[in-house]
Amino acid sequence: MEVGSGSGDKAWFFTRGRWWLALPAKFRANMVDMARKVKKLGQDDPRRVIHSLKVGLALTLVSIFYYYQPLYSSFGVTAMWAIMTVVVVFEFSVGATLGKGLNRGMATLLAGGLGVGAHYLANLSGHIGEPILLGFFVFLQATISTFLRFFPKIKSRYDYGMLIFILTFSLISVSGYRNDEIFELAHKRLSTISIGGSLCVIISTVVCPVWAGEDLHNLIALNIEKLGDFLEGFGDEYFKRTGGEACKDDNGFLEGYKSVLNSKTSEESLANFAAWEPGHGRFPFRHPWKLYLKVGIMARECAYRIESLNACLNADIQAPSEFGSIIQEACTNMSIESGKALKELALAIKTMVQPSSADSHIENAKSSAKKLKSLLKSGIWEDVDLLKVIAGVTVASILIDVVTCTEKIAESIHELASKAQFKSAEPPLSPEKLHSGQMQCAKSSQILKCPHAVINVSESTPPSPPSESSSAPKASMQRMEV
Amino acid sequence: MEVGSGSGDKAWFFTRGRWWLALPAKFRANMVDMARKVKKLGQDDPRRVIHSLKVGLALTLVSIFYYYQPLYSSFGVTAMWAIMTVVVVFEFSVGATLGKGLNRGMATLLAGGLGVGAHYLANLSGHIGEPILLGFFVFLQATISTFLRFFPKIKSRYDYGMLIFILTFSLISVSGYRNDEIFELAHKRLSTISIGGSLCVIISTVVCPVWAGEDLHNLIALNIEKLGDFLEGFGDEYFKRTGGEACKDDNGFLEGYKSVLNSKTSEESLANFAAWEPGHGRFPFRHPWKLYLKVGIMARECAYRIESLNACLNADIQAPSEFGSIIQEACTNMSIESGKALKELALAIKTMVQPSSADSHIENAKSSAKKLKSLLKSGIWEDVDLLKVIAGVTVASILIDVVTCTEKIAESIHELASKAQFKSAEPPLSPEKLHSGQMQCAKSSQILKCPHAVINVSESTPPSPPSESSSAPKASMQRMEV
Repeated sequence: MEVGSGSGDKAWFFTRGRWWLALPAKFRANMVDMARKVKKLGQDDPRRVIHSLKVGLALTLVSIFYYYQPLYSSFGVTAMWAIMTVVVVFEFSVGATLGKGLNRGMATLLAGGLGVGAHYLANLSGHIGEPILLGFFVFLQATISTFLRFFPKIKSRYDYGMLIFILTFSLISVSGYRNDEIFELAHKRLSTISIGGSLCVIISTVVCPVWAGEDLHNLIALNIEKLGDFLEGFGDEYFKRTGGEACKDDNGFLEGYKSVLNSKTSEESLANFAAWEPGHGRFPFRHPWKLYLKVGIMARECAYRIESLNACLNADIQAPSEFGSIIQEACTNMSIESGKALKELALAIKTMVQPSSADSHIENAKSSAKKLKSLLKSGIWEDVDLLKVIAGVTVASILIDVVTCTEKIAESIHELASKAQFKSAEPPLSPEKLHSGQMQCAKSSQILKCPHAVINVSESTPPSPPSESSSAPKASMQRMEV
Repeated sequence: MEVGSGSGDKAWFFTRGRWWLALPAKFRANMVDMARKVKKLGQDDPRRVIHSLKVGLALTLVSIFYYYQPLYSSFGVTAMWAIMTVVVVFEFSVGATLGKGLNRGMATLLAGGLGVGAHYLANLSGHIGEPILLGFFVFLQATISTFLRFFPKIKSRYDYGMLIFILTFSLISVSGYRNDEIFELAHKRLSTISIGGSLCVIISTVVCPVWAGEDLHNLIALNIEKLGDFLEGFGDEYFKRTGGEACKDDNGFLEGYKSVLNSKTSEESLANFAAWEPGHGRFPFRHPWKLYLKVGIMARECAYRIESLNACLNADIQAPSEFGSIIQEACTNMSIESGKALKELALAIKTMVQPSSADSHIENAKSSAKKLKSLLKSGIWEDVDLLKVIAGVTVASILIDVVTCTEKIAESIHELASKAQFKSAEPPLSPEKLHSGQMQCAKSSQILKCPHAVINVSESTPPSPPSESSSAPKASMQRMEV
């Protein structure tokens, strides 16, 4: 066809020919595009590749039930349930896998027992009554269990178990009608499911485990850091813009907080999975995961305020006004100090130390807020064109609100730190003490060991978050398959 | 034991006896509490009860495979797959059920074919090579498929299909090692799954169907209505509080908007399910469900502003100031008119008519905003204590922002209305025309048919949303079990 069939229409040949020529290039472009996407997906979170290989490994191992004669002769086709279990139970994080595995195992045990009971009960009612009674039992338990799944508490933790309960009860009780070896059936189902589930849990825990708890911990710290990034940059950026300067090209820090607005679902599911996990690394069993959710709620409250600030930033910029230059210092300070406090708090979560170093920044932000208020109160405002100051006043007002939010976040993190027994940092000093300490240090500046000097230095230049913070594993938005 | 064993310790008897006596009361109280919760769950959305009954019915019907001899002799134990399919595929809404059913069916067909192919290929490599090659195939497809599930597009619509693909391919190819009737196995699996899936889809569609699309439609309308409720009440409430009046007891309307802040996940999953649904009621196939998500995003933007307003409402209330009384009228108007516009828009979505009646309210709100701006600009502000006006200015500024948000919501709903071909309402009149129309009507007030009079009436007293709006079915937060 490409050579042309000799007497063919020339125009047709050309268009057709072009189409043929275009295909491989297009196909190639598509393939390249696809490959790039795959690479990016893997690079964004390399644990995805490892998870995929783990699932492949688990499935290959569980199929030995079929290949190895002694195993096959004892389990037969019921070995299929082990394969099924591996496919549906193996999840991205240890917590999710454990949760599903335990749900599946427990539900199978319970429903298997009840199913056998229902079968014997139905058996008593004779040949005609049996299917009717069995049908009634199946209907009743399916209806009740399905309704129970609507309870929020059951839905969040035991939904999969309820599903398997309905499934197993129906299978066992109904199969019993045709198969008198119902005990063996229930027993085989339970043991194959246990084997499959255990294999999943073992591989998921031993081979490069992904802990939902750690993901939650990192997600919360990252979210608070993002808020801090915004606030640290906001003050400067806003007054630069009102001052007529061009905005920086690199404004990524102004968008980061957006993901915080909608992180509720992922936080909740991670906390749910984390509750199933045993102690690991820095997190003991019964680590207070629910307190992370509380911190998350406070962080979102703050993010809503920041959304309003961002709207101010992108609104029609007013001409630079005298008013703006007067409030500039206090506003910028409030913004930067809140931002620093949040970043300190994020760092405290990450490193699991008491977040005492953030308190001084919060105090600074609060004193800036006070200063701003007294500035606004002083009688210097005559003949003010309120329309020109409205944007500035709004920003100032929201920033005062943000300081309150930051304080609330700090409180919730303090609670978390004390419940989760974070390592204690050097106790913070009161401003007076700090001041007298500085004086003493100035006097004896040769004495390098002066603790106040150390604290003062560490407070004036807060340790910047470690560079790995940006490459902190993204809490992947694992949706629960339940 | 209750009577006492004669020579027993009296004190022991009393404490023990009390415990016994307390038990039934406690137990009874628990039972009553439980019953109340169950009743509430059912009353909140009676469709839950119906759904549970539907699942029970489907399971009972599908177990006929076991009871009825002719059916059992042709399917045997593979009938179990039909039961399994019903349990895992039957979802709350038609869309979710259809989506899962189609995913399961298609994945089984595809994986069954590939599994048979893999089996034949492995068969060629002799007795020793076969399990090795089969193991390799299973590993390869499980790894690749698991990785593909991380793609957001695949995850949102075909995640369950991928799961079943892995499952079926593994089952069929591995079973083939022990069972040469692999074609029959694949065929039986496909047919039982088809039967189970079809039964689910039929019952879900025919018996009191729950349409995800309709839920999404109602959810979006309800959310916008909640925003409107807040705004309509906010202006009055705020200035009442600053005026020192006690706040009303019935402030439910001030909290309703909170659910809008976090409705992203449920909107997205409903839109996802809706895309699977055939045409139903007022919604044809390929109704533009994605545009609802756009409206939802705009509504959330507005809700973030409202969150800031609510913070102003709950902040330390300033003493009544001269300033407050000056901006009161314009602010209250902006708030009420935006609220009315949003409620009109919600009503337009609900009744599926062009939302033209909202435009006049938006115009009113915009002109109030202009009026406010000129008020602020006029040189009446001398010796103003900015600290006292800061709260008022902030509220005014956020309200101006809210008017912009309302306009954006209206735009997105206009787009939805034109794409979804909502019924057109009477074209709105320009204010001049309206005015001259009123004049004419006044002149000939006997002429009842005067169209302007009708329009004018409908605009000055917008039809209040129908009373069933409050009992509109809550879009239940059906999580996908996928």
